[in-house]
Amino acid sequence: MDSIVLKELGNFYVRGHEVILHDQPKQKFVCQDGSEQTVDLNGQFEAGQMYVEYARLAEPRAKYPLLMWHGGGLTGVTWGSTPDGREGWQSLFLRFGHDVYVSDSVERGRSSWAMYPQIYRTHPEFTTKAACWSNFRMGPVFDEDHAKRVAYKGTQFPVEFYDEFCKQIVPRWRSMDDWAQAAYDDLVGRFDDGCVIMAHSQGANFAIPAALAHPDKVKALVLLEPARTPDLNTTDFSVIKHIPTLILWGDFIKVPELCAWTKAAYFDIYPKYYELMKGLGAPIDWIDLPERGITGNTHLLMMDRNSREVAQAVQDWMTSRGLMK
Amino acid sequence: MDSIVLKELGNFYVRGHEVILHDQPKQKFVCQDGSEQTVDLNGQFEAGQMYVEYARLAEPRAKYPLLMWHGGGLTGVTWGSTPDGREGWQSLFLRFGHDVYVSDSVERGRSSWAMYPQIYRTHPEFTTKAACWSNFRMGPVFDEDHAKRVAYKGTQFPVEFYDEFCKQIVPRWRSMDDWAQAAYDDLVGRFDDGCVIMAHSQGANFAIPAALAHPDKVKALVLLEPARTPDLNTTDFSVIKHIPTLILWGDFIKVPELCAWTKAAYFDIYPKYYELMKGLGAPIDWIDLPERGITGNTHLLMMDRNSREVAQAVQDWMTSRGLMK
Repeated sequence: MDSIVLKELGNFYVRGHEVILHDQPKQKFVCQDGSEQTVDLNGQFEAGQMYVEYARLAEPRAKYPLLMWHGGGLTGVTWGSTPDGREGWQSLFLRFGHDVYVSDSVERGRSSWAMYPQIYRTHPEFTTKAACWSNFRMGPVFDEDHAKRVAYKGTQFPVEFYDEFCKQIVPRWRSMDDWAQAAYDDLVGRFDDGCVIMAHSQGANFAIPAALAHPDKVKALVLLEPARTPDLNTTDFSVIKHIPTLILWGDFIKVPELCAWTKAAYFDIYPKYYELMKGLGAPIDWIDLPERGITGNTHLLMMDRNSREVAQAVQDWMTSRGLMK
Repeated sequence: MDSIVLKELGNFYVRGHEVILHDQPKQKFVCQDGSEQTVDLNGQFEAGQMYVEYARLAEPRAKYPLLMWHGGGLTGVTWGSTPDGREGWQSLFLRFGHDVYVSDSVERGRSSWAMYPQIYRTHPEFTTKAACWSNFRMGPVFDEDHAKRVAYKGTQFPVEFYDEFCKQIVPRWRSMDDWAQAAYDDLVGRFDDGCVIMAHSQGANFAIPAALAHPDKVKALVLLEPARTPDLNTTDFSVIKHIPTLILWGDFIKVPELCAWTKAAYFDIYPKYYELMKGLGAPIDWIDLPERGITGNTHLLMMDRNSREVAQAVQDWMTSRGLMK
C-alpha cells in the first residue's frame, strides 16, 4: 500500500475559558482499599476547550482541509482504526489526498470535562451497550447475554467486535451543547481559505450551525446519518444555499424497531431539509446506500466491513462536486 | 523540513472489561435552563480500557517501537504540539526514525472513564492551575491574578501560554492505578519483538513495573523526571538489570519552594534507584540537563522552548545505547 507522506502531525485547542471556584467544601472519601482520599474542588480551571488534531500532507490533492466531527457519546476515535483493526477513515481520507482534522467535542476525550454541577450544568449520561445497540442499528434484539444478541442479517458491522467498539464510548452531557457549538464555530472560523466538514450523527447538529455562522468558510458539508438540524421554520438557510451538501444513509432503516432519533431524522427532519435546500437551488444530494446496491450498513458505517467502499462513495461525491484539485 | 513518511496511522484499545449495573436509582436533575434531565445508570458498560494510537513509518530507523507514556493529570496530548504551537515530541521522534505509540492512561482522555463510586472507587481529583504551577515548576509565585504570577528567571516554558497548557489537564483518579498498570502491562506484552518506553513523571510509576512484568520485551526505559519506583527494599530489580535506562532531569530543582513529589523523587527515591541499579551492573545513566549547559527546563520539558534540544539529548542517548539500526 502507498505511504502517507505528511508535512506535519500536530494538535491544538480551540476555545476554553478560566473558571474559578471558591468556598467549595472539601470532599472526603473512603476508598475500596480502606484508604482516605480528599478532593479539593477550589481553584482555577480551564473549561469549554475542544481538542483538535491534524495531519497535513506534503502534497494534498483536495482543495480544502477535511474536518471530521464525531457523533453522540463518542470521540474522534470514530475516525480511527475500526474495532476489528482495519484502517479507519482518518487514514483513508489522508490516502485520498485530504489534510485531516479530527476533533473530540467539548466534554469528551482529550477535550477534558469539568466538574458538575459547579461548572457543567448537570450530571453526565453514561451510554449503555443496550442503547448503542439500538441507536447504532446493530440488530433487532439486544440481551445482556452476548449469545442472545441478534444482529441484522447481512450486517456489515463486525458484531463479534461490538464490545470492543463499546470501549470508545465516553460519558456525555445533554446540557452543554452551546459550549460545543461555540468551539466548533471557532474551529471553522480559523480556516480563512475554507474547509470541508464531515459530520457523523450528532456532529451534524453542530455542522449546519457552524456553516450558518461561517458560510464563506465551509466549502462542503458531508452529513453521515445526521441527527438534527436548526429549526426548519425559523432559520434562514439561504446563506448556505451555495454549499455542496451530501446526506448519506445506511441500511436497516425501514424496520419496525427503528430507534426514535433515526426515525425522526430519516423520515421527517432531513427529507424536509433536503426539499427546503433543493427549493433554494442548493447543490444538495441524498444517497441511500442500499439504493446503490451497497447493503448492510449500520449507523457506524465508517467501522463497517465495507467502510472502504462507503468512503469511496463519499470521495466520489467530493470529486463530483469539484472539491479535489 | 523533511516529510514524515508513514506506512500506517491507527489506534486500538488494550484491556477493558464489562461491568453490569442493576437497581441503580434513576438520577433526575433540573438544568440551568430549567429543563429536566434523567440519567439511567443501569446497564452494561466497558471499563478499564486504555486508548493507544500509533504512527508507523515506512522505513523506521529505530530498532524498536517507542511507547510514550504521559504523566499525572494529563493525556497523550503531552507528546503533541506544544501549547505555543511548535512541533511536539510525537512528531519529532517520528522524524528521528521511531515508530511511535502514544496512549491515554485508563480513566483519561480517549480511554474514557466510568461512573463513581459504582465502578471507579472514588471521586476524581480536579487539578488546579495552582497545583500544576508548583508541581510542574513554573515559578516561585502563583496567583489567581495572572499578572502577579512569577515564573522562574530563564525558564524555557512559554509561560504566556500557561493557561493554554492547562486545557490539556483532565480529571484523574488516585484510586485506580491498578487498572492503569494492568493496561500498560498488557500493552507492553503485545510487543513480541521488543519496545522502548519513554515515560514522563507519573508514567514512570507504571513503566518500571511494566518492565518487571515483561523484562524480555522492554529494550530501554527513558524516564523523564520520573515520580516513583516500586518498593526499593522488597522488589527484585535484578530481572531488569540488562535494560538500558535513562533518568533525566530539568532545572529549578535546587530551590527552597520545590514541590513535595519532586523533592522525594530527585533527592531520595531516584538516587537510591540509580545506585541500586548501578550496583547490579545495569546500563543506567543519570542526566541533569543544567550540568550539560541546558538550562531553564521545567517539568514539562517536552513543551519547553528548547524541547527540540532536550529531545536531541534523549535521541543521542538512544543512539549511544545501540537502540538505532
